[in-house]
Amino acid sequence: MAVTDASQVDVLIIGAGPAGLMLATWLARTGIIFRIVDKKASRINSGQADGLQSRTFEVSRLSDRKSVHATYSFKIFDSLGIGQDIWREANHMLEIRFWNPDKRNLLYRSDSIVDTPPGLSRFQQATLHQTRIEDHLLGYIGRHSPIQVERGVMPESLSIDTENVDEDGAYPVSVTTRHLPNPDREPVSIAGVAKSAVPNGLFRSNLAADTSDTLLQDAKADAKSHTETIHAKYVVGCDGAHSWVRRQIGSVMEGEQTDYIWGVLDIIPITDFRSMMIIPRENKFVRLYIQVTEVDEDRKASKIDRSDISPETLLRAASNILAPYTLSYKHCHWWTAYQIGQRVGSKYSSHERVFLAGDAVHTHSPKAGQGMNISMHDTYNLGWKLASVIQGRADRSLLKTYSTERRQIAQELIEFDQKFSRLFSGRPGTDIMGEEGIDLKTFKQVFEKGNLFSSGLSVDYAPSLIVAKPQPFNGETPLTNGDSKVDHGSVVGKHNLATGIPIGMRIPSHKVLNQADARPWHLQELLPSNGAWRILVFAGDIIDPAQSSRYEALGKALNSPDSFLHRYRPNGESVQPCFEVLTIHSSPRKEVELLSLPDIFHPFSEDLGWDYNKVFVDDLSYHEGHGQAYDNYGIDPRTGCVVVVRPDQYVSWVGELEDVGEMDRFFGSFMRVQA
Amino acid sequence: MAVTDASQVDVLIIGAGPAGLMLATWLARTGIIFRIVDKKASRINSGQADGLQSRTFEVSRLSDRKSVHATYSFKIFDSLGIGQDIWREANHMLEIRFWNPDKRNLLYRSDSIVDTPPGLSRFQQATLHQTRIEDHLLGYIGRHSPIQVERGVMPESLSIDTENVDEDGAYPVSVTTRHLPNPDREPVSIAGVAKSAVPNGLFRSNLAADTSDTLLQDAKADAKSHTETIHAKYVVGCDGAHSWVRRQIGSVMEGEQTDYIWGVLDIIPITDFRSMMIIPRENKFVRLYIQVTEVDEDRKASKIDRSDISPETLLRAASNILAPYTLSYKHCHWWTAYQIGQRVGSKYSSHERVFLAGDAVHTHSPKAGQGMNISMHDTYNLGWKLASVIQGRADRSLLKTYSTERRQIAQELIEFDQKFSRLFSGRPGTDIMGEEGIDLKTFKQVFEKGNLFSSGLSVDYAPSLIVAKPQPFNGETPLTNGDSKVDHGSVVGKHNLATGIPIGMRIPSHKVLNQADARPWHLQELLPSNGAWRILVFAGDIIDPAQSSRYEALGKALNSPDSFLHRYRPNGESVQPCFEVLTIHSSPRKEVELLSLPDIFHPFSEDLGWDYNKVFVDDLSYHEGHGQAYDNYGIDPRTGCVVVVRPDQYVSWVGELEDVGEMDRFFGSFMRVQA
Repeated sequence: MAVTDASQVDVLIIGAGPAGLMLATWLARTGIIFRIVDKKASRINSGQADGLQSRTFEVSRLSDRKSVHATYSFKIFDSLGIGQDIWREANHMLEIRFWNPDKRNLLYRSDSIVDTPPGLSRFQQATLHQTRIEDHLLGYIGRHSPIQVERGVMPESLSIDTENVDEDGAYPVSVTTRHLPNPDREPVSIAGVAKSAVPNGLFRSNLAADTSDTLLQDAKADAKSHTETIHAKYVVGCDGAHSWVRRQIGSVMEGEQTDYIWGVLDIIPITDFRSMMIIPRENKFVRLYIQVTEVDEDRKASKIDRSDISPETLLRAASNILAPYTLSYKHCHWWTAYQIGQRVGSKYSSHERVFLAGDAVHTHSPKAGQGMNISMHDTYNLGWKLASVIQGRADRSLLKTYSTERRQIAQELIEFDQKFSRLFSGRPGTDIMGEEGIDLKTFKQVFEKGNLFSSGLSVDYAPSLIVAKPQPFNGETPLTNGDSKVDHGSVVGKHNLATGIPIGMRIPSHKVLNQADARPWHLQELLPSNGAWRILVFAGDIIDPAQSSRYEALGKALNSPDSFLHRYRPNGESVQPCFEVLTIHSSPRKEVELLSLPDIFHPFSEDLGWDYNKVFVDDLSYHEGHGQAYDNYGIDPRTGCVVVVRPDQYVSWVGELEDVGEMDRFFGSFMRVQA
Repeated sequence: MAVTDASQVDVLIIGAGPAGLMLATWLARTGIIFRIVDKKASRINSGQADGLQSRTFEVSRLSDRKSVHATYSFKIFDSLGIGQDIWREANHMLEIRFWNPDKRNLLYRSDSIVDTPPGLSRFQQATLHQTRIEDHLLGYIGRHSPIQVERGVMPESLSIDTENVDEDGAYPVSVTTRHLPNPDREPVSIAGVAKSAVPNGLFRSNLAADTSDTLLQDAKADAKSHTETIHAKYVVGCDGAHSWVRRQIGSVMEGEQTDYIWGVLDIIPITDFRSMMIIPRENKFVRLYIQVTEVDEDRKASKIDRSDISPETLLRAASNILAPYTLSYKHCHWWTAYQIGQRVGSKYSSHERVFLAGDAVHTHSPKAGQGMNISMHDTYNLGWKLASVIQGRADRSLLKTYSTERRQIAQELIEFDQKFSRLFSGRPGTDIMGEEGIDLKTFKQVFEKGNLFSSGLSVDYAPSLIVAKPQPFNGETPLTNGDSKVDHGSVVGKHNLATGIPIGMRIPSHKVLNQADARPWHLQELLPSNGAWRILVFAGDIIDPAQSSRYEALGKALNSPDSFLHRYRPNGESVQPCFEVLTIHSSPRKEVELLSLPDIFHPFSEDLGWDYNKVFVDDLSYHEGHGQAYDNYGIDPRTGCVVVVRPDQYVSWVGELEDVGEMDRFFGSFMRVQA
């Protein structure tokens, strides 16, 4: 038996799926020292080359579990600079068509609705499978850090030194990890796997038993296996539905688990069912979701012999639903089956030192299409907060907002998912909207709610340290700052100054022009995920002398050595900015001279000259129309406003050009004065 | 001395700059066996890491000669699938500002115009330097072929076996190449080089002497150098201004060479000259073009001591022009100087076996910004023609159209360039538009003509084998088919059926929707460069029974074993299509069922089911407006039309839905019946 090595690291991520990799993007970008381990040794589950032409279908040889189809995820990808690539590769979803049995019980096309309501976002829903999403995230991580995923490594013990959890420099979490000599030897625990040579996800489905303990036993018995003890400041469990980290911190999944079993089949359909597009995917593939369990009259699912589940049984079930149309396929690249349940972990964190994210802390039905998306959004929320605390820029109290914000979203999602799943599961497949079924209006409403989820527009974080809005009038006691010294409840943004920029929600994106070269940019493109807080100065009509003086006075106040901009900004921050001040004015572009504006709004560098990329204008572009940003943001050009935007693009605060003192108090409640 | 190897190849490309690489994209994509050699051993001229942060400025370490800034080039890149990547990386050019001396001889901003007129193209002008363009082209070639550029190899003799030039299977061109043992040891022929450590292009400028002979002499004297004789079907010289291939086939550069010398400086400017944006480039760099030669009162340039040219002298000259503003820099990543001249080779080809392209056959001033663009357009025109002939799909007579089409464009360009250069060169730098100078209106007109060039919209090929339009009424004898058997003069398209699609010009792009899934596509995106001729069926309003019968009759005629579609289509062409039939109808999308249309318009495959990507519709999209394609193309929905589009997206012919016989004759005049 090998010796146990020991080492230190700022963050240890357990699990390299979408949630783990999204967390790694922040840490890589902000220069945090981290490690990321995954018990699987390789990402490709099926190594067999099939007969297909490789160039066209090479994705079909890759493992596939989930697919991204959320516009909000695209906005995050865009802020990482990989949105356009994923968008181009993905299948775009534009229309949903409903098919129902007619009087003679024959299917007919009963209606169609738009998939993403127009105007919600410049990205619409699109599908691309998980492996490719992971590829893009890995590519980003590789461009910003030399750190690589350590595969074939699993944790075997975790302990927290609770006496040290509040000490800044401490490494209070110890995890012993074990290198697996045969990491890809997954026990085949249900019979279906044996029935199909096609790559499938049964072994990691919730129908399969957790194999972690078996794997660990095997490894311990192997002389080649060695262990390492990692002392970490923070540990994040992104280790899926059977989360090992969850068990260590005593978090329990709470909620329902049903008996309904559904199957999933990714095929290129050959059918006379016209324009068959159940869930269209990239490269001509189509995903079918098929209920496998029989349902009796009390709407209770009967038991099914799980060993019967195979692509053939799934195809038979689908064919029954589509009759009299026929369905077959030559290319199936993946399939699985799962049991429906909606549950949320009882806690998201232990001492804000060990965190859970993704499937490790919430599960819901894949049909709502939110699994991978919500998982990535979890760690997109956590990553910048961890980085700020580790860098000594923010107080540890900031970390409490992870659990409150993400637990709220998980709860909202599973409530939606319960409704959504009942639409499909509680009734025979052929009468979803039949005479005794749900009416089309209800059906459409549920779909529209789903669209809001995937667009991210339904996320509205509650008041907190970093969301400066009034407490709701529900009699609850206001949130306090936990371990923080300052009571933040008194800083409240002035929402009426920008009615189109709700505090606690993601900032909407409209087009503005660069003052210097007239190039149009979506505001979103100006907010890359680099860890910076943005101070958006909507300066209004600065041709007006009164407004111009207010703008100049703001510049002077920001420039003062006492302002938050200087107090909390570390020296030598050029690599990883802390604050970025962007101006968006509303005067005609050609009437404003960039270099006549106060220097702080377009800083000068001895090396690089003036910064031409900090001042923008709400004006007509040459080729791409007028963004009407002030109108859309509900800002009066005669007054303007200042908006504080979090590094994850959520809105913290809105105030007047004179409210620098309020901003000082806001940042003072969780940021640390730098030497 | 090493033995001479011997080998055969379909196409040998000499020179791996933009023209050579663009040719290689076609050959790689169509599976033609080719080799591409370049005398330089590496693409990176300056290997020294400078003090800059590598991620932001890594381009500054690369050699840079020209930059792309033509919208037409972007359309070509788009058809290769690399347009979006280049577009994203490039600096976008939106506005041109004019600065003039006032009465006191101080500079003031006199006017501004839009750079690319709105509506011309969905891409506007943008700048990106040559090395990155080459990277993207090399990436494309690498994805489609294992063939790599052979560097450090130069030709030393070329002979054509004129007895065999018309024989299909022959390899009538023999080239002996020599591997250079020290290919990067460029003789420093003018003193300026020694004066600056900054990477520069002087050694390949037209101010420098041709060094090929010296290189060859050195190599011959070296025992390690060996030679190879390559027997090729075709040879293309893309070997630049000092073209060796040009000399071998006795082509002579004809035109003017002036004494005006200009310098080029790529710097990050530090200046109080407001919004200095002479030629903005990527990564904060700006390119300055500066006249170096003094000009006397007779507007004749005086002699200058060439050894005086250095970044410092160029900066001094620029500072004089900008006074009273100041200019300096810390980062200069490239500079050069050149002599202005406009010349075209006396012949473009020898026996249609050896061709010249790019700088090898035309030169003009870099300021017009067309050098790299026109060079790539040359071989973009030649590549698909060579591939068709080598594949036995088309007659060799097709190759004659290369010289006629591209010589016409080169002539038009140098006429424009002469005017454009005179705007700048014939007068002192400070009074371009002064009281005695050219008036602003003339200046703007010349700029607008420049825009037409770069948008590709001024290219209008004359009638030929593959441009079926009437001869101009200038008394010239009609073109005949050269070696071809069929006289093609009698097939003439019916331009009135599609007044917005001029025959001989590039087909304009408007948005249409996919019939099956409603996704909007720019027509351009449906025409990737894969060698296929497109038959665009504008079927009109096919809900109308009369129009529907016409569409069905067209389907039947195309389906006949006698139609061109079957006669000229090789068996087993799936990898490299010969024809593609695309329908664009104008009925409401939801009233048309894809599978009720004739099969030939959405072919069935046993393996992959129905093809959902061949039928499109001119209808309102969900998120991106209405393309109004029929309106923009000037097509009446009650009649429709058929448009034949060349593999390079130029329009060959327009006719009625009944004109299948005309299409048969059109293709019959140069295509070969397949077994």
